[in-house]
Amino acid sequence: MRVDKKTVVVALGGNAILQRGQKGTFEEQLKNVQRACEQLAQMVLSGKWRLVITHGNGPQVGNLLLQQDAAKEIVPPMPMDACGAQTQGLIGYMIQQTLHNILDREGRGDIPIATVVTQVLVDKGDPAFQNPTKPVGPFYTVEDARRLRIEKGWHIVEDAGRGWRRVVPSPDPKGIVERDAIKALVESRVIVIASGGGGIPVIRGDGCLRGVEAVIDKDLAGQRLAAEVGADVFLILTDVEKVMLNFGGPGETPIERMTVAEARRYLAEGHFKKGSMEPKVRAAVRFVEAGGERAAIGHLFQAVEILEGKAGTQIVRDA
Amino acid sequence: MRVDKKTVVVALGGNAILQRGQKGTFEEQLKNVQRACEQLAQMVLSGKWRLVITHGNGPQVGNLLLQQDAAKEIVPPMPMDACGAQTQGLIGYMIQQTLHNILDREGRGDIPIATVVTQVLVDKGDPAFQNPTKPVGPFYTVEDARRLRIEKGWHIVEDAGRGWRRVVPSPDPKGIVERDAIKALVESRVIVIASGGGGIPVIRGDGCLRGVEAVIDKDLAGQRLAAEVGADVFLILTDVEKVMLNFGGPGETPIERMTVAEARRYLAEGHFKKGSMEPKVRAAVRFVEAGGERAAIGHLFQAVEILEGKAGTQIVRDA
Repeated sequence: MRVDKKTVVVALGGNAILQRGQKGTFEEQLKNVQRACEQLAQMVLSGKWRLVITHGNGPQVGNLLLQQDAAKEIVPPMPMDACGAQTQGLIGYMIQQTLHNILDREGRGDIPIATVVTQVLVDKGDPAFQNPTKPVGPFYTVEDARRLRIEKGWHIVEDAGRGWRRVVPSPDPKGIVERDAIKALVESRVIVIASGGGGIPVIRGDGCLRGVEAVIDKDLAGQRLAAEVGADVFLILTDVEKVMLNFGGPGETPIERMTVAEARRYLAEGHFKKGSMEPKVRAAVRFVEAGGERAAIGHLFQAVEILEGKAGTQIVRDA
Repeated sequence: MRVDKKTVVVALGGNAILQRGQKGTFEEQLKNVQRACEQLAQMVLSGKWRLVITHGNGPQVGNLLLQQDAAKEIVPPMPMDACGAQTQGLIGYMIQQTLHNILDREGRGDIPIATVVTQVLVDKGDPAFQNPTKPVGPFYTVEDARRLRIEKGWHIVEDAGRGWRRVVPSPDPKGIVERDAIKALVESRVIVIASGGGGIPVIRGDGCLRGVEAVIDKDLAGQRLAAEVGADVFLILTDVEKVMLNFGGPGETPIERMTVAEARRYLAEGHFKKGSMEPKVRAAVRFVEAGGERAAIGHLFQAVEILEGKAGTQIVRDA
């Protein structure tokens, strides 16, 4: 038995599963997952890595909220935490089946894979609860928006001229409730899919865990997961090749490698887009600061090269 | 560390989570789950048992199919296997959170609990695929039924004067795809929730696993799960106290205990209701025949007594 394998946690962006502009059929999603899993399988087949996978769920939760809304007169809609749990089941299933099929094609169908339904602890005092910012679900007319504010107490804001939309808090992840189970699986050489969609957000109150209507950033949650399983490398895969300095402005420059101190300075200087690249860089920095060897951000199609340090943007310890 | 714990697999009936006549709000379901988990927690707290939980998903899949149908013009409906995966996430989440809260109240919040998204292998040559019998989803008018038969190739039958309804095959479970992961968790003293709703049915064809539109009986799948994790006892919890001889007829008699040979004879004589008690007895018999110590069937509220052999119907090896 090899004992020198390192552990990598890979965070797949939403576009790895459902691309903008696609309708979201099961077949489309499986096809996208197939492409992502071809990369993940290579990491496993190299024999060098233990693999933990996390993923976004934005489009899938969006679809579920639309379905719930359309049927609301006949089926009681579920709260956001329950919707998150449903998408973890759905996306986990697609990834575990597809990855198994690829590994099996390569003669390694014996490697176990499992999706763990994951709750992520957030602080009930998190300032995010006072300032909901994350848009979710369908667009409403101004009349519906007024009614829903009163009926359900939702925060609803106008979304860039496209209509009115509910916003929910995006609190900071503090811990992975299913950590021990996930660690036991990783130690048993099981490929684990966990904390999908940033995890199901739960708070602890009156001695009990309870789901909350919120959305945790999936890369920040992925960092918690990576730290708690003792990962060596944390890989954030998205649809751009590298993190950009002066993003969208004059002097835009791709970054090949930055230390934590450099990354912190760039964050403070506002180089990265809020709600997009900014939380990814922040998650990468946190991972390395918490003792991780290295984090990296880059394009899904270059995942193996990024893991090998040959592509993407590498975030490393201060010299 | 105690090493003499036995393993019990408990199968919760659909009514343990959503009762007939309830609308199916999240709060209702959580409350039902709470009641079931109070029983499960006692088993764990006794210190005598390692616990694996499986559960039905009929009402939850039904609701999801209604929601998908209501939104079908704007969101592509998912196939049955994907719906099953979603309900595993949802119900697993409810159980793992609730059971944790109860154990935590009793000072044992340290015991890890995890839901594993579970695929269950069925044989693509299973005769059930030629004879779909399990009704799922909404009722249709005769016109819609005709249209859906042509458009989607569905089998649709009249359901006891209530309208027309899709029926899907109910094939026999042959194996638990995530067996190794589930075993690793059980061996690491994690309480596992697995194979919800009978598992996500998959077939192996062209070297690949692929989901199929079918529903596996949750007790028969639970038996496979119990056998593959090497469980000592398999407990099937429902809403009746005991299995009845001559069910619904003259001379109806509760059974306290039967051997496998007796149970086989009663099955052959048609004492048990098809699609209801019959598959439960069949699953119990299979479990003991495959080497299990004992199976039992009884009411959810008597779970602990049934596990101790003091209530319900016990199914034991031939003398």
